[in-house]
Amino acid sequence: MALTYFESYPEVSSTFTFEIDDVLFSAQSDFQKIEIVQSKAFGRILFIDEMVMLTERDEFVYHEMIAHVPLFTHPNPRKVLIIGGGDGGTARECLKHPSVEKIDLVDIDEMVTQACLRFMPQLASSVFSERMNCHFEDGVQFVKETKERYDVVIIDSTDPIAVGEGLFTRDFYQDCFNLLTDDGILVNQSESPAWLPSLVEGISAKLRSIFPAVHYFQAHIPTYPSGHWVFGFASKGPHPLKDFDSQRIKAANLSLNYYNEAVHSGAFQIPTFFSRLTGNG
Amino acid sequence: MALTYFESYPEVSSTFTFEIDDVLFSAQSDFQKIEIVQSKAFGRILFIDEMVMLTERDEFVYHEMIAHVPLFTHPNPRKVLIIGGGDGGTARECLKHPSVEKIDLVDIDEMVTQACLRFMPQLASSVFSERMNCHFEDGVQFVKETKERYDVVIIDSTDPIAVGEGLFTRDFYQDCFNLLTDDGILVNQSESPAWLPSLVEGISAKLRSIFPAVHYFQAHIPTYPSGHWVFGFASKGPHPLKDFDSQRIKAANLSLNYYNEAVHSGAFQIPTFFSRLTGNG
Repeated sequence: MALTYFESYPEVSSTFTFEIDDVLFSAQSDFQKIEIVQSKAFGRILFIDEMVMLTERDEFVYHEMIAHVPLFTHPNPRKVLIIGGGDGGTARECLKHPSVEKIDLVDIDEMVTQACLRFMPQLASSVFSERMNCHFEDGVQFVKETKERYDVVIIDSTDPIAVGEGLFTRDFYQDCFNLLTDDGILVNQSESPAWLPSLVEGISAKLRSIFPAVHYFQAHIPTYPSGHWVFGFASKGPHPLKDFDSQRIKAANLSLNYYNEAVHSGAFQIPTFFSRLTGNG
Repeated sequence: MALTYFESYPEVSSTFTFEIDDVLFSAQSDFQKIEIVQSKAFGRILFIDEMVMLTERDEFVYHEMIAHVPLFTHPNPRKVLIIGGGDGGTARECLKHPSVEKIDLVDIDEMVTQACLRFMPQLASSVFSERMNCHFEDGVQFVKETKERYDVVIIDSTDPIAVGEGLFTRDFYQDCFNLLTDDGILVNQSESPAWLPSLVEGISAKLRSIFPAVHYFQAHIPTYPSGHWVFGFASKGPHPLKDFDSQRIKAANLSLNYYNEAVHSGAFQIPTFFSRLTGNG
């Protein structure tokens, strides 16, 4: 019998359905509902609270873009902090940079990592790297209390509801700013300008009130609402285009499917309706 | 009572649903089923054969990109041929260029234009321009027989099934090539590399077998399958980036919501998995 999962997009009174062959994992953690299913067309899919977090088919877009854009901009990224990202996909990409000596990954919910280790090891096995330190605790508290300093902070959060809400506040961004080194960069997943324009506008305003320079870049992620997904790039120093050396990407010779030196620059060339929301352009 | 319309995406075993307030128009023409509905979140939507052709909310992305990319690349576009595009949206954008003296629009189905004149006049009223010549006939025959020559040909087709199928053949592209002037440019909507990779690959191979230079550009169109929509740019002469003068865009000072001088260049910076399909990169 055919099984259908769907994600509701209440912001546009729509739903997107997936045909499912099997439910591999389904549990309520202390924080959220976690499911991993085998779909017909998207490989395995991780749902949290009935929203798509990633599919095997297109997770490469999100993870390559959130990791390589800051890591190829920063001149010498050695210490990286990932807030959220318990599935391990962002860490997997960060670990491709030999300059990175240490990654702290802070996810509130260990069950996400455990489920992904079992059903999506090609993402989650990154946590076994010697360079990885996993902290299963609240990211909001972690950034308030840590004495560590980071070259790059990546906020790989869920949406700004329930457990993810604290990762979209001005206070949280200020704490992240404080633990960045002098030429540090923060990148955060910033939702969709097409369907959630006021949310994008709000995130941008908060970042701009703290960081001297805030840019935006975008990617095509078909299984996120609208497919038009964007990232804030808030920097204490490096400019994402002027301080970016495309030769470094060529020399690194990584095996990637979305990100390349042309995409790095192209992703920052954003449409007019979106630049109006962010004060760019 | 809530009414739901949906589009099936058989290529990924998925569907996308729209909440509808009212069905404004529904008829079977000689060629296809045409419907215009009032939706809750996307304004009015034109469906043909149960596939979304455009929504009032995001049609600007498609129409701005398919028209302004070639028209701001060609040094002096005077004559434009639009194949398909009976809704009038592409013509509306082309008419914003004062250099354009004449537009031939060839759509097989006059009922599309009549329905849009009634329910989407902000698109279709472009057909009343003195510079417009509408031909309600088969585009495949038109390009075989016309003695006219064009600076820019825009293929604004439906998908390559049923009535649209002939607009994706090598013979048709060859006929279009033959009626382009020496520095002519052809642009065609080329579907989604994310969900229809072999289709994109096939279109690209046909264009490359005819044109000396073929490039690809992309746009975020949330209500098309995957949201990652791409366009072929096949040129007898002008290069979309090297022969493009961003000052012309600034000087034109058009009121646009997606396209701008940064987007023009950024749209050609395509991800690795897509450039593999097109032989670019």
